[in-house]
Formats: sequence, C-alpha cells, structure tokens
Amino acid sequence: MDSIASTEISDQWMEAALNQAKDALNSGEVPVGCVFIYKGAILASGRNTVNETRNATRHAEMNCVDQVLKRCQDKKLNPMHIFPEIIIYVTVEPCGMCADALGQLEVKQIVFGCSNDRFGGCGSVVDVPKMYSYPYNIIKGIRADEAIGLLKDFYKGENPNAPSDKAKRKKTQ
Amino acid sequence: MDSIASTEISDQWMEAALNQAKDALNSGEVPVGCVFIYKGAILASGRNTVNETRNATRHAEMNCVDQVLKRCQDKKLNPMHIFPEIIIYVTVEPCGMCADALGQLEVKQIVFGCSNDRFGGCGSVVDVPKMYSYPYNIIKGIRADEAIGLLKDFYKGENPNAPSDKAKRKKTQ
Repeated sequence: MDSIASTEISDQWMEAALNQAKDALNSGEVPVGCVFIYKGAILASGRNTVNETRNATRHAEMNCVDQVLKRCQDKKLNPMHIFPEIIIYVTVEPCGMCADALGQLEVKQIVFGCSNDRFGGCGSVVDVPKMYSYPYNIIKGIRADEAIGLLKDFYKGENPNAPSDKAKRKKTQ
Repeated sequence: MDSIASTEISDQWMEAALNQAKDALNSGEVPVGCVFIYKGAILASGRNTVNETRNATRHAEMNCVDQVLKRCQDKKLNPMHIFPEIIIYVTVEPCGMCADALGQLEVKQIVFGCSNDRFGGCGSVVDVPKMYSYPYNIIKGIRADEAIGLLKDFYKGENPNAPSDKAKRKKTQ
C-alpha cells in the first residue's frame, strides 16, 4: 500500500510540473516545468522563462529556487534549513548548471520525467551529482512520454494546447 | 609589445577581481572575486555573498551575471548580444554551476587565478566546457598565489587586510 500511495503522490506532483511545462509551451518557451515539494505541499512552481527574460539561465528549477528564497526572506526562515527537505519534480532532466546548483543547495531528491541527451547534468551528458558527490537521490522516467511529447510539440512549432487563432480558423474552415 | 600590453591588461583586471575577493574576506565570505570586462572596461564586478544571503548559489560570477542583466534591462539592450563579448576575470576556478551558466550565456573567455581541487568545473573536478562543448576560451594561473593566499587566510580564520580591533589591540600592546 505504501508504494502505491507513494506512486500516486509522484503522479500528482509530476502532473503539476507538466502543467507548468504546458504553460511554457503556450508562452513560446522550451516546455520544462517544475515544482518544489516541502512537507507534502507545493512550496514553489515554475517554468522555463529564457525567451521572456532573454536570460539563458532562467530555467524552471532556478525560478523555483528564487521563489523559495523569496518566501524564506518574507517569513524570516533560513533557506539552508529548508532546501534539505525539498523534493523536486521536473519534467526534463536538469542541465549541469541546475544539477550543480541544487546540489550546492543540498536538496533532498530530484524526480524527473524524460532524459536530456544534449544538456542533461544527471547522467546523460555529465553526471554532476556523482562527480561532486552530492547526496540527493534521483528518480527518473516519471511520465517521461508526456514530457517528450511537449518538447516535440515545441520543436515542431505546433501547440495543441493553445486555442490559437490559427487552430480556430482551421476548425471553422 | 602586444603580448606585454595584453599581460598588463590581464593584471589590471585580475587586480580588480582580487580586490573584490579581499572585500569578501573582510566581510566573512569565502574570498572569491570577479570582474566582467566588456569592450575594454569593467561592466560588472562582484564577490561571493553566500553567507550574507544564506544562498549557496550566490557566487561572484552569478552576482556579476545579474549585474549585467540589470544593466541590459536599464539600457534596453539584449543580453544575448552582450555576453558573447564578455571576458571574465575571476580569482578562483569557477564551480560546475558557474562554468555551465557562463557557457549557456556564451561568454567569450574566462581567466582565472587558482584552481579549485574540490569544486572546480573547468577541469579540476568536472570539465564542463569540454563536456558540453562550450566555446569559451580559458586562461588559468594569473596571480594564482595571491588568490590562494586569500583562501588560506579565510580558512585559517585570519584576515591580514582588515584593520580589526583585535589587530589594533595587538599593535598597541
């Protein structure tokens, strides 16, 4: 029963991360979404904002990190005590920068959807946690097909989620 | 003559980075300092602020990145056109996170002082630019002894630069 409950929870949080990725897709960003779970609830949720900010480092994970830091500042909490309790759900394998940042912040666990053969920092291109002996646990492959599907939609230039004028025109034709 | 001039320029910018590192030391931070050079002038300068911010990712390089982004925003410039012209002088080898972030931002060159056998991401622990085929050029070993000296002072808990009350008391005894 425990393992079933645990899987259900994983699906719930990955669902939330996938919704963030869909939001990225609808905004013309590479569709990667992420949520940070703290004590069984979402503490931060975010998505890729690289195009919007013209800043190549504004990945979903980094946006969530900044949200946590802001919340800690507002509530006068020490982020160094919060991050080690955080479990991350992200639709795509973190890049080297994010994998390293999350290691330095000492997060507890990273759950990701699909691997990233070009930029993956959790084993695909570089195994950052292994090379730096970061203690976080990694679970991969959770709803990977959906994460890949969103990336394919982005790179095809199609977006089945957006009720765009184009799609509407097609329907009415 | 060109190479002498070039060395002189390197020294000047590394001197500025070392001054930032000294400022970090005087503030109780791991002494790492950095300057970003754009078109022959300092566009950003910063130091480690990990303890002050309680954020393990506030390295000197990341603080400079944020300064550049702020300046670009203020002057309505596209940072994606600015970073590829930037040469970085940093007193210590960038970690994996910074090496990767600077690669994604497509900076032109990184000049660093001493290597970092524990966290170095430009060859010492992980060779991020090689593994991700980042195009930036790396020059290392510029005034390395001074960078190491500052780190040693920090880890010894001594700070010969700060005119502390303790030092003053010693002098007057």
